[in-house]
Amino acid sequence: MDISQKSLEKHYEWKGKIEVISRASIKDKEDLSICYTPGVAEPCMAIAEDGNKVYDLTRRSNLVAVVTDGTAVLGLGDIGPEAAMPVMEGKCALFKSFADVDAFPICVDSKDPSEIVDAVALISKSFGGINLEDISAPRCFQIERELKRRCDVPVFHDDQHGTAIVTVAALINAAKVIEKEPSDMTIVVNGAGAAGISIAKLLVRMGFGNVMMCDTRGIIYRGAPWLNPFKREIAEMTNLEERRGTLAQGMKGADVFIGVSKPGIVTKEMVSSMAGKAIVFPMANPVPEIMPELALEAGAFVVGTGRSDFPNQINNVLAFPGVFKGALAVRAKDITEEMKVAAAYGISSVLDPQELAPDRILPDPFDPRVVPAVSKAVMEASII
Amino acid sequence: MDISQKSLEKHYEWKGKIEVISRASIKDKEDLSICYTPGVAEPCMAIAEDGNKVYDLTRRSNLVAVVTDGTAVLGLGDIGPEAAMPVMEGKCALFKSFADVDAFPICVDSKDPSEIVDAVALISKSFGGINLEDISAPRCFQIERELKRRCDVPVFHDDQHGTAIVTVAALINAAKVIEKEPSDMTIVVNGAGAAGISIAKLLVRMGFGNVMMCDTRGIIYRGAPWLNPFKREIAEMTNLEERRGTLAQGMKGADVFIGVSKPGIVTKEMVSSMAGKAIVFPMANPVPEIMPELALEAGAFVVGTGRSDFPNQINNVLAFPGVFKGALAVRAKDITEEMKVAAAYGISSVLDPQELAPDRILPDPFDPRVVPAVSKAVMEASII
Repeated sequence: MDISQKSLEKHYEWKGKIEVISRASIKDKEDLSICYTPGVAEPCMAIAEDGNKVYDLTRRSNLVAVVTDGTAVLGLGDIGPEAAMPVMEGKCALFKSFADVDAFPICVDSKDPSEIVDAVALISKSFGGINLEDISAPRCFQIERELKRRCDVPVFHDDQHGTAIVTVAALINAAKVIEKEPSDMTIVVNGAGAAGISIAKLLVRMGFGNVMMCDTRGIIYRGAPWLNPFKREIAEMTNLEERRGTLAQGMKGADVFIGVSKPGIVTKEMVSSMAGKAIVFPMANPVPEIMPELALEAGAFVVGTGRSDFPNQINNVLAFPGVFKGALAVRAKDITEEMKVAAAYGISSVLDPQELAPDRILPDPFDPRVVPAVSKAVMEASII
Repeated sequence: MDISQKSLEKHYEWKGKIEVISRASIKDKEDLSICYTPGVAEPCMAIAEDGNKVYDLTRRSNLVAVVTDGTAVLGLGDIGPEAAMPVMEGKCALFKSFADVDAFPICVDSKDPSEIVDAVALISKSFGGINLEDISAPRCFQIERELKRRCDVPVFHDDQHGTAIVTVAALINAAKVIEKEPSDMTIVVNGAGAAGISIAKLLVRMGFGNVMMCDTRGIIYRGAPWLNPFKREIAEMTNLEERRGTLAQGMKGADVFIGVSKPGIVTKEMVSSMAGKAIVFPMANPVPEIMPELALEAGAFVVGTGRSDFPNQINNVLAFPGVFKGALAVRAKDITEEMKVAAAYGISSVLDPQELAPDRILPDPFDPRVVPAVSKAVMEASII
């Protein structure tokens, strides 16, 4: 039986991948009056006097909302809030399984960014953090920006920042494997959606060399006439040599290709035209920009994809559980750029230099060192 | 140590009375691809094709949101969404403990009814039902009415309808004890807030005799000049004799007093003035309208309060777990008047006639017969 059928059967069996249980044992009238009325008035009054106590007296200190509008679900696109729910429940199950963080799925029945922002902001005090998920670009940028402004808990769009953190962690270790300095590398990021823009920004912030971003019209440069405001911002901070041309022209001589775009759009010739010991991360799902075996045949030295059936899976599950665990532990009000950088170094540091190899640049998601390393790095960075 | 201190200590120990766990075991890469990508695409597509499958493939079929704005929390009043959270978590713990219904607390950070309605309606597809809680009157009427219109899941304001169901259940059995016909009784309901209005409406619908409602200005009658729209509606359906006067005048000769008002406002003289074998339910919390021992001294035959330290506690926990369990089981789109009536009879039917006594008109909340009886009654009534 293939994975799809097996998954459908298991979903019928599970009847939901999450469950809300009681941590209080309620067996008699005294339990009832301690857990509920009249006893519960006391913790309520304690919070009314000092708002911070909500983190000590309720689940908020360990609780994340996984929020979507269902507009960009996996590779399925705009399937709506109800059909998106199995993915959101899955994400919540991963939060709990990997990091013991409680997570609850909220599917918002609107496509209007300001309606979504209002609804999520108004319920945000029920949670210790907000993980945005599978919201289409460019709406996701506006929604995240507004929510960050309005909420006093961390807001993190995983498709942007989770992907960026893990991609950069992979690149840090790949650079060690090929023995090049990150600051000397030319990096082409193809696909100017949520993930691509966040990857490019994080690379620039971390001092990686010449970052060039491409969309369907080619290399993005300052003043290019087709850019929306989000791409214009990218044009200001990338491609400092102001190169123009196609993706193929951009890849010529580049050290790194990062694809968050479309299946099959990179040819062997394009990989062959890159610098020696090329790093190629074709991360389109489920079919990469170029299949790993072709990229290796064409001379790539390190290849990573989004898939679990090839080496070097660049998988968000390496980041989000530890990122939120760390942010919750210090009651962070925001997940800052410094915390994302720290998370990337945290992931890359899990593997000792002697463990690194062209087909092993990232730890296994089930490696028990991952979540502690990431959450510790995030906590430390939040305090600075 | 008193209950308040004990409760505070337990709350620090619990660090939240609810927890979100994973029903999926995620131990290796195959588990990951069944629970999450790529396998999860299959249940998503199944729901996209047939929206009803969301109930089979996600937790929605067993999941209730417990929603408040924190404006009327217990006897504490408007303490805000964060300070209200211990009560909402407590309610969720009761849902799970009594009926194995998953419930999740949502505190909305607004006092504007239309903002609250928008936020809750937009997230309602994440749940199988909405339990409104501790929202001040008359805002609660507008919020419930609008949400019922906009949501395709049942919306139930427990402070209104849960209280009404249990009060009526108690009255059904009290009438058996004193051997009076419900349709012959004169009933005074004092306090025209959320609970009082809902109790009066349910009594009228069920054919109880002459129902009179009082507020702080006395008996409510058709055309009384001080009525808001909600009380005007009540004036149309109660007090068919069009009596006027004070609460004391209303109680003279009445068979039943139901108080959902203020501590200590009923005197022994007022109880003495009632008909023989009077039924007195002074339910103000934590201090009743008249203390039970005084009411009995004054000639009351059956006395019930909101408190667990006196006989005949009129406690919502007898209703809401079974009401939602039944509504969820049949995937009801609404909790209708018929379902509320059925729930009241369901609760009262738990005690056999020979179990009934003046100090035993309701089953114990921990009686294992309660939830099955209520949920069965609600299910049957929903199908009619």
